[in-house]
Amino acid sequence: MKHIYAIGIGTGNLEHMTIQAINAMNGADLVFIPTKGAQKEELADVRRAICERYLKQADGKIIEFAVPLRETKERSYGQSVDEWHAAIAATYRRLISDLPENGTAAFLVWGDPSLYDSTLRILERVRDKVEFDLTVIPGITSIQALAASHRIPISLVGKSVEITTGRRLAEEGLKTESTVVMLDGIQAFTKIDDPDAEIFWGAYLGTQDEIIRAGRLGDVADDIVRTRAEARERHGWIMDIYLLRKGRDFQD
Amino acid sequence: MKHIYAIGIGTGNLEHMTIQAINAMNGADLVFIPTKGAQKEELADVRRAICERYLKQADGKIIEFAVPLRETKERSYGQSVDEWHAAIAATYRRLISDLPENGTAAFLVWGDPSLYDSTLRILERVRDKVEFDLTVIPGITSIQALAASHRIPISLVGKSVEITTGRRLAEEGLKTESTVVMLDGIQAFTKIDDPDAEIFWGAYLGTQDEIIRAGRLGDVADDIVRTRAEARERHGWIMDIYLLRKGRDFQD
Repeated sequence: MKHIYAIGIGTGNLEHMTIQAINAMNGADLVFIPTKGAQKEELADVRRAICERYLKQADGKIIEFAVPLRETKERSYGQSVDEWHAAIAATYRRLISDLPENGTAAFLVWGDPSLYDSTLRILERVRDKVEFDLTVIPGITSIQALAASHRIPISLVGKSVEITTGRRLAEEGLKTESTVVMLDGIQAFTKIDDPDAEIFWGAYLGTQDEIIRAGRLGDVADDIVRTRAEARERHGWIMDIYLLRKGRDFQD
Repeated sequence: MKHIYAIGIGTGNLEHMTIQAINAMNGADLVFIPTKGAQKEELADVRRAICERYLKQADGKIIEFAVPLRETKERSYGQSVDEWHAAIAATYRRLISDLPENGTAAFLVWGDPSLYDSTLRILERVRDKVEFDLTVIPGITSIQALAASHRIPISLVGKSVEITTGRRLAEEGLKTESTVVMLDGIQAFTKIDDPDAEIFWGAYLGTQDEIIRAGRLGDVADDIVRTRAEARERHGWIMDIYLLRKGRDFQD
């Protein structure tokens, strides 16, 4: 049976790699690295650097593949993502079909495979055509990197945490004491009418380009919008995340 | 200035350790290991095993300290935790005060310091009495270990995730498509009247004693209650977590 590893690699700090991830990479015959398209070149560079630093034997082992682009014209969000996943699945199917019987290969997944990443659900689509075993290796997410850089707990004592998207935050507002917002292209925090909430924001977390800002939302929102726009212009892309927190520990 | 590292160590699998965590441990003069009290002996053993495996020079470097017990009699939950944190802070204060000037020390934190862990907020209490710099190193949480063992994404496409406690789940019910429940001593999933929700449960995740169960809540809840009770009896303690999931990807 073929064997696929989906390996969480953390958020760009090469030292986010776990021993389990390093051992799995070294145990695989091939390591697949996505390039271009949806993936930015700097993200591919992080994966190349991980291979260079941690693979004991890299010769002929690294396979780069182009990720299809997502088409958004005349499609709902759901349709657009569904088609995109189908296109990526066709690529995965080819890569896995080309593996020898009993061959093993590793996908290096940004952050952790369980959170706002589709590697696992795309692998599920491939499975009806190609048989393989699957092992998932957890990795550090940008949520943990954000909290570590700000040196704060995400959860207040006994309270809950919501992890959501910019789109949903804009529609639904703050629903709980700690709200982590990912995939926010619309700066939904500027639409939250709760100036006393605290915001803990970070971009390029874990990398040498990391930027963080924190404060009362009413005081720092404008600075974050400006800082984010400048950084995005400078890099050509941005990955950012933030926590909105209300209330205090031990407060009912 | 003294320097403290709060290092996330993952959930009991020694290979959850990141390169960053290993480097920080080795850079510290002392490593503090909590024993007894609230901490179970097996949890201290994992920390000892981590030191044995990853510390290049361990002689005289490991300091074990007893964690005070939490008093619950005639106190609200908030009071009880607040007093408990004050007692632990007194212990931390002594440990940090004993460090030489410019000394560095590491606390090894189960999972990640940001999620349902109080090391950071207890260190904040210490700070008004002893000055120190603080670095936080993220670690693999039981949420990621749960998802990896079940080989599933936690988040559905474009949907949000709630992380909550058993107590709050019992009071508030399911509020979103993906609900992760931690610290559940009351098996609150048995009180959810939604037999078609899926449950993904795991105990002792990442360790050799790991147990996982999954299925339609209405079909597997009884088995999980029974399995959990047996395991708890056998080990003398249990740490478990679960995800309740409703709906599907691309479903509005």
